[in-house]
Amino acid sequence: MLDKSIQVGIVGLGMIGGSIAKSLTKKGYKVFADDLDKNSLSSALSEGSIDGFLEDLNCNNNFILIFTVPILSASKELLKNKELISKALLVSDALSVKGSLRKEIDKNKINTKNFVLSHPIAGSEKSGYIHSKEDLFKNKIVVVTKLQDSSKTSIDICYGLWDLLGAKTINLNSEDHDKYFSKTSHLPHLIAFALISMISKSDQVQKDIFTGGGLKDFTRIASSDPKMWEDIFLSNQINILKALKRFKSELGELEKLIEDKDSDKINKFIKDAKKFRDSLI
Amino acid sequence: MLDKSIQVGIVGLGMIGGSIAKSLTKKGYKVFADDLDKNSLSSALSEGSIDGFLEDLNCNNNFILIFTVPILSASKELLKNKELISKALLVSDALSVKGSLRKEIDKNKINTKNFVLSHPIAGSEKSGYIHSKEDLFKNKIVVVTKLQDSSKTSIDICYGLWDLLGAKTINLNSEDHDKYFSKTSHLPHLIAFALISMISKSDQVQKDIFTGGGLKDFTRIASSDPKMWEDIFLSNQINILKALKRFKSELGELEKLIEDKDSDKINKFIKDAKKFRDSLI
Repeated sequence: MLDKSIQVGIVGLGMIGGSIAKSLTKKGYKVFADDLDKNSLSSALSEGSIDGFLEDLNCNNNFILIFTVPILSASKELLKNKELISKALLVSDALSVKGSLRKEIDKNKINTKNFVLSHPIAGSEKSGYIHSKEDLFKNKIVVVTKLQDSSKTSIDICYGLWDLLGAKTINLNSEDHDKYFSKTSHLPHLIAFALISMISKSDQVQKDIFTGGGLKDFTRIASSDPKMWEDIFLSNQINILKALKRFKSELGELEKLIEDKDSDKINKFIKDAKKFRDSLI
Repeated sequence: MLDKSIQVGIVGLGMIGGSIAKSLTKKGYKVFADDLDKNSLSSALSEGSIDGFLEDLNCNNNFILIFTVPILSASKELLKNKELISKALLVSDALSVKGSLRKEIDKNKINTKNFVLSHPIAGSEKSGYIHSKEDLFKNKIVVVTKLQDSSKTSIDICYGLWDLLGAKTINLNSEDHDKYFSKTSHLPHLIAFALISMISKSDQVQKDIFTGGGLKDFTRIASSDPKMWEDIFLSNQINILKALKRFKSELGELEKLIEDKDSDKINKFIKDAKKFRDSLI
């Protein structure tokens, strides 16, 4: 559990940051936030989701700091808050890619004793403070990435934070994290964007049939935030390109079987995929 | 509306056929069915979803006939029921591909005056009589395909049938139907099978993270029936291979932009896709 006296600083008050704020203020913690969008900040303040702006946080008392900003803004925000970072009990994040953040940390020679990274798997095609909600993390998975010199105190506080927010934590190092999500999240988004792009160019599009069948669910992720996904594609470039290469090879295999009308092998391919998918429900 | 005195014959008592049967018997129609799976038939009979087997249908009185069988079984069932077909007020189906059915009709020189094809967009990753339900078609779209010599009577009965089942009908000729669904349904399934196949070969699979994020929705269709999809891939081969070619070209475009780290064009690609997808909700 997180001691009630610990203040919480949130940099970036979007859907994730806003949801952390709403949940923690409700539980009686003091939450202070920063965001480039002053409207989000003043909404949050008037709704009581935050207690003040980041500059109101008393950095002589205990506090933790969470960066819930777009990936490619992380560097700037780290530098801007370098002094605050050095005094925090815990510095964490919610980024979907860890490698580029670690590069920034190294480049700026930031001491990472108090860093423990987090990736809450609670995103959706929605974004922005307006979609934040108090119970966003309830029963969700949060991937926690300890750095080599993360202190035991910071690790415990990080676990305590997510436990408090109702999430279940699992561990992955940053390399495995980025490889794993390139396959299970980044590639599926890339595929959905490409598929929708293709369909949009079809002259047979009939919007009323489109939403029938499985396509609505299948392409929901294509409604995701462009800036966020631009950042992810650029910052996890190598892993995503590797995953794409493997996917194209699977596509090619199935294409060949269909060209050859090889019914037995098509059936086996689908059966194996179904079996694996069914094991994941 | 469908006259209450019209008997209904259903060939293939799976999820679609079973749902038609359940809905129509509930509304007071006499329904007679055939299926290779005798267990489905006897369940349906004891549950009161059907009134008897297909041979109990009185072919000297008015009746309609619906083929809700796997695509590649259609030919055999058409031949087997050739005499019944010749006497029906309406012969319809629920097949996801129309071209191969039309070939069978032509090959067997079947008179199609009483044929009006149907494709209810009500399928899911589930299949079999056990997943049939009375209200499956409520507010669903049914694509109706009239043949060149479909009679006005048969067309009216077909519309009446789907209206009775609560569905909304739209028209497409069989060529456009097969092209359209190759892009919006067959290709997405092919992609989902290939993606799951690729992920299943990854050594980093952690089933508890897998289900987080958008992947669960995205790959639900990979749980679909292997035999059904083998049939679809084989019987709509040409259109599917064309759609796949176009999809691979879109994938290649996005791949190139990521390789080049062309952030502006990546953002535009995603933004355009999002805009189109959002317009479909």
